[in-house]
Amino acid sequence: MIDRLIKQIEQKANPTVVGLDPTFEMIPKTMANEMFEEHGKNTKAVANMFLQFNKEIIDQTFDLVPAVKLQIAMYEQYGLDGISAYLDSIVYAKEKGLVVIGDVKRGDIASTAAAYAGHISGMSIEGIHFDPWKEDAVTLNPYMGFDGIEPFLPPCRELHKGIFILVKTSNPSGSELQDLMSQGKPVYEYTAELVSKWGELAMGDQGYSNVAAVVGATYKEQGEFLRKKLSHTFFLVPGYGAQGASAKDLGGYFDSDGRGCIINSSRGIIAAYQKDGKYGEQNFAEAAREAVLLMKKDLGGIV
Amino acid sequence: MIDRLIKQIEQKANPTVVGLDPTFEMIPKTMANEMFEEHGKNTKAVANMFLQFNKEIIDQTFDLVPAVKLQIAMYEQYGLDGISAYLDSIVYAKEKGLVVIGDVKRGDIASTAAAYAGHISGMSIEGIHFDPWKEDAVTLNPYMGFDGIEPFLPPCRELHKGIFILVKTSNPSGSELQDLMSQGKPVYEYTAELVSKWGELAMGDQGYSNVAAVVGATYKEQGEFLRKKLSHTFFLVPGYGAQGASAKDLGGYFDSDGRGCIINSSRGIIAAYQKDGKYGEQNFAEAAREAVLLMKKDLGGIV
Repeated sequence: MIDRLIKQIEQKANPTVVGLDPTFEMIPKTMANEMFEEHGKNTKAVANMFLQFNKEIIDQTFDLVPAVKLQIAMYEQYGLDGISAYLDSIVYAKEKGLVVIGDVKRGDIASTAAAYAGHISGMSIEGIHFDPWKEDAVTLNPYMGFDGIEPFLPPCRELHKGIFILVKTSNPSGSELQDLMSQGKPVYEYTAELVSKWGELAMGDQGYSNVAAVVGATYKEQGEFLRKKLSHTFFLVPGYGAQGASAKDLGGYFDSDGRGCIINSSRGIIAAYQKDGKYGEQNFAEAAREAVLLMKKDLGGIV
Repeated sequence: MIDRLIKQIEQKANPTVVGLDPTFEMIPKTMANEMFEEHGKNTKAVANMFLQFNKEIIDQTFDLVPAVKLQIAMYEQYGLDGISAYLDSIVYAKEKGLVVIGDVKRGDIASTAAAYAGHISGMSIEGIHFDPWKEDAVTLNPYMGFDGIEPFLPPCRELHKGIFILVKTSNPSGSELQDLMSQGKPVYEYTAELVSKWGELAMGDQGYSNVAAVVGATYKEQGEFLRKKLSHTFFLVPGYGAQGASAKDLGGYFDSDGRGCIINSSRGIIAAYQKDGKYGEQNFAEAAREAVLLMKKDLGGIV
């Protein structure tokens, strides 16, 4: 994952990740009505809206960005139909050459984590291989320690897949546990050290590991500190735009070569048409493209 | 959730939860071959095995236990087909009057947690209510703090649903973050205090909250300490049997009235037929029933 991601970032000269986290409220009314007409007012209709919405966003942005991140919760709430749209969106994004990050934040004990690792490894039934999920990388939660991470390492090493482990999250109450101080260091710094150590077990060829970290954009000092501390750990940075962070906060998240992180924006890109009256709802995907170009320019000032 | 769970425990005089965490290796060969015959060697065949296996286990145990817990990872690895078996198993268990706990360990920032809360609240599409998941309760991860929990409180209060938040997990490496000491207290104790505080926002009628905790069976002293500390927090206790804990370790997890916790066993019950040669594979469900009766007797000595 990591080498292909770095290559894509360099080719496209853009560390922006489009967060494909649709909500019903973001769907253009015309599209919603068409789907309701076709399927009835049900989960299948909404799932089809999400897929169609994502496809048009992908069509307008795949040449500009290295990766997309799909927040599975947005789909999962619509049950099987929602998850079906999640899976179909992944296939579509991969056909367009994008690196796909499944934002699933799973985490459990070893035998369970081995099952969750199926997200990036697939699984075998009597020697026949199946890969229902197809993500290139997934996000994971570190609360249960290495047991919950270890089963993901073989696909990271052997299949060039990746994981992004929560270190310091962008939300306000993330501090309740993550900022507790232990022997002069906050808990998230211990998490960071673990992620760095685990990362040595699945290094890529470009100086960064397939075991990466999630570090929120909303805590600038901590981001800079972690960048200096974790030389081979790549960052996925949520919180740009809608959550309040801007490019001036993010310089320190990149290494001295302008590498080492990707910045996610979801609502700020995919719902850009709702923020600016100059786009009609029928131009939602063009508005997303404009938002990506603006974000690229904004970030270009620092990388 | 909590009042119904306590009532069921008392009616059945048994705090045992059956963990419906099937693996392909647990499926009787005859059943596997029948399903492969019908569906081919694919995820649909395995999903149907899991559903059939669960139904027979439920038939043999629903009169003995208050609840079942389904580890979603076991299903999720088989993609949509697997999740379909998860959902159908939930419906079947609910028809038999069981309290159903979805072991999903989700956790995310507020807007995302609101989507995940659909597991226990369902959601609305243009005023029409849908409930694709139907769990009575789900497990959650606390690493992101209250933001990730708050959206689950309205269904806990208004729909009598429940959540079990990871406090101290049963796996060895759970200690890596959970046992870090901050001002003389381990991180899991801070988590416990948060869970207790959040619990006040969704109390049931029997002295316990719909906001409950996961406390592993493998750390006896910590379990006893947390039981004394958290007067209105109910415990879901994994780790009995296969993970090494036995009834003698668990006395301190119950309150002085013999209430306050449920003990989960998965492999020890559902794969009991593989441990004892006296059952043939065709009697896997009867073996599960025997295992539940043995566990009830074992736990009966302490409650």
